[in-house]
Amino acid sequence: MRELELIEVLESVLAPGGPRVIRSFGDDAAVVRADRYAVISIDAMVEGVHFRRGQLSPEEIGHRALAAALSDLAAMGAEPGEALLALGIPPGLAADEVLATVSGAQALASSLGVAIVGGDLVRAESLTITFTVVGWASDPGELVGRDGARPGDLVGVTGSLGAAGAGLALIEGRAGQGIPGDTARALRERYARPPPRLSAGRELSALGARAMIDISDGLATDAGHIARASDVRIELSLASLPLAEGVSEVASELGAEPAAFAATAGEDYELCVCAPASACKRVEATVRNDLESGVSLTWVGSVVEGPPGVTFSEGDTGLSGYEHSFLD
Amino acid sequence: MRELELIEVLESVLAPGGPRVIRSFGDDAAVVRADRYAVISIDAMVEGVHFRRGQLSPEEIGHRALAAALSDLAAMGAEPGEALLALGIPPGLAADEVLATVSGAQALASSLGVAIVGGDLVRAESLTITFTVVGWASDPGELVGRDGARPGDLVGVTGSLGAAGAGLALIEGRAGQGIPGDTARALRERYARPPPRLSAGRELSALGARAMIDISDGLATDAGHIARASDVRIELSLASLPLAEGVSEVASELGAEPAAFAATAGEDYELCVCAPASACKRVEATVRNDLESGVSLTWVGSVVEGPPGVTFSEGDTGLSGYEHSFLD
Repeated sequence: MRELELIEVLESVLAPGGPRVIRSFGDDAAVVRADRYAVISIDAMVEGVHFRRGQLSPEEIGHRALAAALSDLAAMGAEPGEALLALGIPPGLAADEVLATVSGAQALASSLGVAIVGGDLVRAESLTITFTVVGWASDPGELVGRDGARPGDLVGVTGSLGAAGAGLALIEGRAGQGIPGDTARALRERYARPPPRLSAGRELSALGARAMIDISDGLATDAGHIARASDVRIELSLASLPLAEGVSEVASELGAEPAAFAATAGEDYELCVCAPASACKRVEATVRNDLESGVSLTWVGSVVEGPPGVTFSEGDTGLSGYEHSFLD
Repeated sequence: MRELELIEVLESVLAPGGPRVIRSFGDDAAVVRADRYAVISIDAMVEGVHFRRGQLSPEEIGHRALAAALSDLAAMGAEPGEALLALGIPPGLAADEVLATVSGAQALASSLGVAIVGGDLVRAESLTITFTVVGWASDPGELVGRDGARPGDLVGVTGSLGAAGAGLALIEGRAGQGIPGDTARALRERYARPPPRLSAGRELSALGARAMIDISDGLATDAGHIARASDVRIELSLASLPLAEGVSEVASELGAEPAAFAATAGEDYELCVCAPASACKRVEATVRNDLESGVSLTWVGSVVEGPPGVTFSEGDTGLSGYEHSFLD
């Protein structure tokens, strides 16, 4: 299939409509109505580095690449808007696999009101999926960076941790002996189709979050990014981490301490948020989540003065009373 | 060099400042002040497909990748704003080569007032440079698509054609016996460092251009995109094509008819524009060009009714009196 024909087929899969979109495919560039501030991020996933084709369906590969990109908008508290896709297609990849990959991304985009408005198809040695995502805000104060954490803030995480890492271990056959089928499927799903926490991110921003990051490399690493950007120390309680169901069992099979596994496995795409104690009370409010009926927030540590970095303690935060749920 | 260290070194090369930029590197996403309409495009270049490392310096590879992406904004008549870079780095590529590649792009960006505000570094099998560019407009009427050409319009091209293709032939040693050194260097430069025609694009839009495209695949192919999008026939005069100096000689060495070579070689990143005859008189106006002292416009054909496509004639357009120069 020639590139031009493939583009035409892909355009038939993509549904770039929406009130904001003025031009999309078929021109040199897409044109969209802007809000006052644009929030922009680019994220590439390469076969053999970020995923393996045999482990995920094409639809899952497409979903996961877009979800990872949108997760950065979630961590800023931005309203998601548009996406552009550069697809590097290796020799021998069938056109229907390309189509299924794009369909997986389009399905996620549609569920979130995101329009895939542009793209580029190129030959590549390995399947490469690069998404640029554009979000919007009407005021920069709506947006949350990594640099706003202050001593005294509490540190929370959305949802649960360790599921994606455990799911990958199951997919790779490194664990799973004693895991019930439903639990195993749920863990696998969290690796294959991570949910970008867009609504939670916007709600946390509105509630007074001072710093946020999405957990792609593991809480330990990503909280470290906040600590360095904010010039603070973050103390996390391993005992307080919200482990997804089945993570303890998978971690034990792998010979890892469950909480340490959950803090380092990465790719959960949950949010890590720092908020002043005064804001924590407002977290009673509920948020709509785009992909699930709700997503919880668990306080897992606090921000203190000290050399920038992350400290883990074995005890709990003593803050378990602060565990709340957004719109369950 | 670990990814995190490389990112820090790269950030020291990039200069994402500017009145529009609120947040750039170091956060989950960049934040920029928007105009009312965003113009967005993504463009990937893969080693071995779009360039060869031995043929271009790292700086030229970086320049060329960004220029190709910005050329799409030029073809829309958009004001260039920001760029994001996803860099796929193959094993064994030295950190200073990565740095030089990014420096080449940054030098072009700086010369055009474009801010590289975000990026992603990933491992890849081949060097892969994906740029997303964001442009701005305050009114959609300022922007020009491919679908506005109407019978009776004249068809023009900026600058000259064939230089990039001839330059590549010289680089690959396929031609060049009788070409003077200065001419050969100029042809090579046009392949290695194409100038995105941003000022000319905006000026042509303001002068009443109805359809535009940048010439990446060759005038024959790219005029065909306008013809199909506009549902018109485009008649081009081979004899009227503005061939760059030395192109005739290189084409002859290659055994190709010079004008046909210039119309098909591609990668010149000049603009092809369709404008009503009434607008052609206004083309007397001059435009500032960002990279050169000036860029000419040559009328090379006309838009007629008929089945969508491109026809080449051997004669000239009889329109040579319409050749004008923007700000020479």
